[in-house]
Amino acid sequence: MASVLCFKNVIFGGVRKIKNTSFLLFKQASIQSRTCPFSCGGGANTEYDLVVVGGGSGGLAAAKEATALGAKVAVLDYVTPTPIGTKWGLGGTCVNVGCIPKKLMHQAALLGEAIHDAKTYGWELEPDNIHHSWESLKDAVQGHIKSVNWVTRVELRDKKVEYINGQGKFLDPYTITTQTKQGERRLTAKYFLIAVGGRPRYPDIPGALEYGITSDDIFSLSKPPGKTVIVGAGYIGLECAGFLRGLGYEATVLVRSIPLRGFDQQMANLIVAEMEDKGVKFEHRCIPKSVQKTDDGRLHVVWQNDKKEEFSDIFDTVLFAIGRRALTKELDIEKAGVEVAPDNEKIDAPNEQTNVPHIFAVGDVLYKKPELTPVAIHAGRLLARRLFGGSTTPMDYENVATTVFTPLEYGVVGLSEEKAIERYGEDNIEVYHAYYKPTEFFIPQKSIVHCYLKVVALREGDQKVLGMHFIGPQAGEVIQGFAAAMKCNLTVTALMSTVGIHPTIAEEFTRINITKRSGKDPNPASCCS
Amino acid sequence: MASVLCFKNVIFGGVRKIKNTSFLLFKQASIQSRTCPFSCGGGANTEYDLVVVGGGSGGLAAAKEATALGAKVAVLDYVTPTPIGTKWGLGGTCVNVGCIPKKLMHQAALLGEAIHDAKTYGWELEPDNIHHSWESLKDAVQGHIKSVNWVTRVELRDKKVEYINGQGKFLDPYTITTQTKQGERRLTAKYFLIAVGGRPRYPDIPGALEYGITSDDIFSLSKPPGKTVIVGAGYIGLECAGFLRGLGYEATVLVRSIPLRGFDQQMANLIVAEMEDKGVKFEHRCIPKSVQKTDDGRLHVVWQNDKKEEFSDIFDTVLFAIGRRALTKELDIEKAGVEVAPDNEKIDAPNEQTNVPHIFAVGDVLYKKPELTPVAIHAGRLLARRLFGGSTTPMDYENVATTVFTPLEYGVVGLSEEKAIERYGEDNIEVYHAYYKPTEFFIPQKSIVHCYLKVVALREGDQKVLGMHFIGPQAGEVIQGFAAAMKCNLTVTALMSTVGIHPTIAEEFTRINITKRSGKDPNPASCCS
Repeated sequence: MASVLCFKNVIFGGVRKIKNTSFLLFKQASIQSRTCPFSCGGGANTEYDLVVVGGGSGGLAAAKEATALGAKVAVLDYVTPTPIGTKWGLGGTCVNVGCIPKKLMHQAALLGEAIHDAKTYGWELEPDNIHHSWESLKDAVQGHIKSVNWVTRVELRDKKVEYINGQGKFLDPYTITTQTKQGERRLTAKYFLIAVGGRPRYPDIPGALEYGITSDDIFSLSKPPGKTVIVGAGYIGLECAGFLRGLGYEATVLVRSIPLRGFDQQMANLIVAEMEDKGVKFEHRCIPKSVQKTDDGRLHVVWQNDKKEEFSDIFDTVLFAIGRRALTKELDIEKAGVEVAPDNEKIDAPNEQTNVPHIFAVGDVLYKKPELTPVAIHAGRLLARRLFGGSTTPMDYENVATTVFTPLEYGVVGLSEEKAIERYGEDNIEVYHAYYKPTEFFIPQKSIVHCYLKVVALREGDQKVLGMHFIGPQAGEVIQGFAAAMKCNLTVTALMSTVGIHPTIAEEFTRINITKRSGKDPNPASCCS
Repeated sequence: MASVLCFKNVIFGGVRKIKNTSFLLFKQASIQSRTCPFSCGGGANTEYDLVVVGGGSGGLAAAKEATALGAKVAVLDYVTPTPIGTKWGLGGTCVNVGCIPKKLMHQAALLGEAIHDAKTYGWELEPDNIHHSWESLKDAVQGHIKSVNWVTRVELRDKKVEYINGQGKFLDPYTITTQTKQGERRLTAKYFLIAVGGRPRYPDIPGALEYGITSDDIFSLSKPPGKTVIVGAGYIGLECAGFLRGLGYEATVLVRSIPLRGFDQQMANLIVAEMEDKGVKFEHRCIPKSVQKTDDGRLHVVWQNDKKEEFSDIFDTVLFAIGRRALTKELDIEKAGVEVAPDNEKIDAPNEQTNVPHIFAVGDVLYKKPELTPVAIHAGRLLARRLFGGSTTPMDYENVATTVFTPLEYGVVGLSEEKAIERYGEDNIEVYHAYYKPTEFFIPQKSIVHCYLKVVALREGDQKVLGMHFIGPQAGEVIQGFAAAMKCNLTVTALMSTVGIHPTIAEEFTRINITKRSGKDPNPASCCS
């Protein structure tokens, strides 16, 4: 039973297995001598081995893994309603207001395209006469979410993870308090895991909180969103704009500086161009100034460009996607002694360990780590194994693949071209690129102008691959395997010697042969020889 | 200019670069001293550096690459009409009667499913009232093929590859003759490449040739196929049965012995089960005995099971998919001294070199090599580089990925479970497996019972991956990147440390954790933690 382990033993257990300093998983922070004098926190008297604050992907993964390894675990989860009153169940952002509803609404938009394609493939229907019901989709999506909430709850029960529906607040480094329907509860534990995630930010402008919504609200919106302005061109903003347009709504995106900050900018601009072709409007270098309700209940939005010129329009929905803030303040985190970054209240926790050695953090609260569900799950599970399973395997945050689910998707793993140039120098990298034509696009004559991929590699020797970028349908399915290949030190030589699967779009990566440096035309020639 | 190279120099040029015997690319066959006494065949008098017989994927890829490397190249291409008179243009099986039309008809069937899905995602249509027009689809598919024929022709012209529309027949090892519209032509060359591919076989039963069709006919069939019996359960048979059922036709498959011979049989049986669920009928251990025309113009088919019991039914179309034969006999190949395998007339050509050293072969005519377009292209291109570009890189036929485009697809790379057991012994392999639930399947409540994957690996150490198998939508897109990973010696450890892209189906490979040996339930628990 891991629950009899003393914190001191765990540290030493970890240290004993360390072969070199790069495997040092437990940081010896200066605060340790003050708050954790090599004793078991509350000692044998702590109620739990692990208390997890936050019932999202990372927290639940860690809780389940820890329990399976014999630890006594409780999970606190509580959802503060949004300004317009939206709330949801167990499972965190991904299940309720993130990946899952987003992917389903994306799928609904793709099915709208499929209806148009179907006619050209011989199905006798009139796409222009087929309309979409927001309410039906919203009900279907919410129905699925409810079923996942329920399955998640049942799984916790089956796996003997104690679930407490309450907001956790630190009283001291070893005690958390929470208000439940049954009154106040105090929980002591040897370890704490902060997995509270984040919530969307609102701009500080008149009308934002009163009339605006965010991704926390859109997936359960009771009335059709109608003509929508999306403020922010990060991946959440573009994904929302993409599916809204696909479902038939007018969509305008206000871009403050650049689209998809942090992503390869050539690819980002291709995504924007594709969305423009599909009818999404972009207002570049613009920020919102105010939102006012009109007499007929619509929303009058004023925005300003970087020359201080003002513009305005009337919308039905204003969706803010300007970033997310970590929910650390709500935790009374200072009472635990956990430090947060001055700029964004996130927690800098190397190997998921905060400055307080028995308090850990995973998921979107982590400073400068990818805000992605599988990252949180992976980190949470590995942490539980290190705490309770004798493992020394750290989380590897490098080369994590991701996909932007805009109507034409963008899948990526590894470095952007800019980042590769910055890190290795332009003379030392080689960029292979190609436009390609998905076979299925020919009959419906779908636009192929943004179907593009590139491979960023070192220039020397077999050309180790640094980054892979793919715009096209099913980009997530395409890029995942290549992420595994990059884990295995994929080179351009190996990629070129991989035989393609024909006809797929993923095979285009095996056909690369034109470098940017050559200046040759990256447009495709024949399809099958 | 490669065209001034003498055959002797090429051989020596090849040999000079060889570092160890495993790189010996040019076999020193006994026939060499008789027909090729280290001179340039027809010497400086040969008209061409390379004559390619067969204008399919492998032949054209080799021809274009050789021309780019400075060689003078001609390609002979000729399509003998099928028994019912179907013929087609330049580009070979893949473009005209293979991958391309197959994938398009598969897509048409998938779009039929998408119409049903769309309703559940809020699109207001009545799927059961939407019918399919075979003629529209056939016209669209044939229109696309014609455009590819044309693009292929233009590309050959641009690349200065001489194209001759005529059937080639050897007169001697250095001369090929062909009948064209302008009369007989004789072509001499230093090297010949046999890339004639194959054509479907017919069974030797009454009515087969008169009334039956094959994959050479189905994609251009002028009338709807109607109720169809497909004879043969290889991948071509199952793919045809799959899209026909998807387009609304009754489909019955006669299986002689096992489905998808050569593929992992657990996966093959899951594919059959899925197709049965979708309404395809399977008659196991049955062979056809006769096809007769009925008075009303339909086809009366009699078949027999392995207990010699006879059955019969009336169909509109009988499609034979019982295998393909290589078109070597039509080449008068014996006049060139090229030997063929006694069992199937294919050519055993290590490193693509036949027993006659200046005659090579790529593509579906090769003995015991994968009959796949990208394999032919890759081998053809590499051969041209070895012949004219000073390369020594051989074609690697190991771990070639492929996908069966049945309605629920099956993607595979590497060894089947049976083959891994045979090669390494059951005690030395570990098989990880999982059922999974595609997120998009929930709302339309599509069946997930056959969404399954497995990873076959060595048991020791980091568990080198030997084979990966995936049944689900977009299986080709999913498996391609993992094929690149296997080129880089993917291990289970590396796979498990790869972070998934959520929510995709490809990420399921990164979540594997249950071995068959453990006996644990491979059904999925929660989706996002």
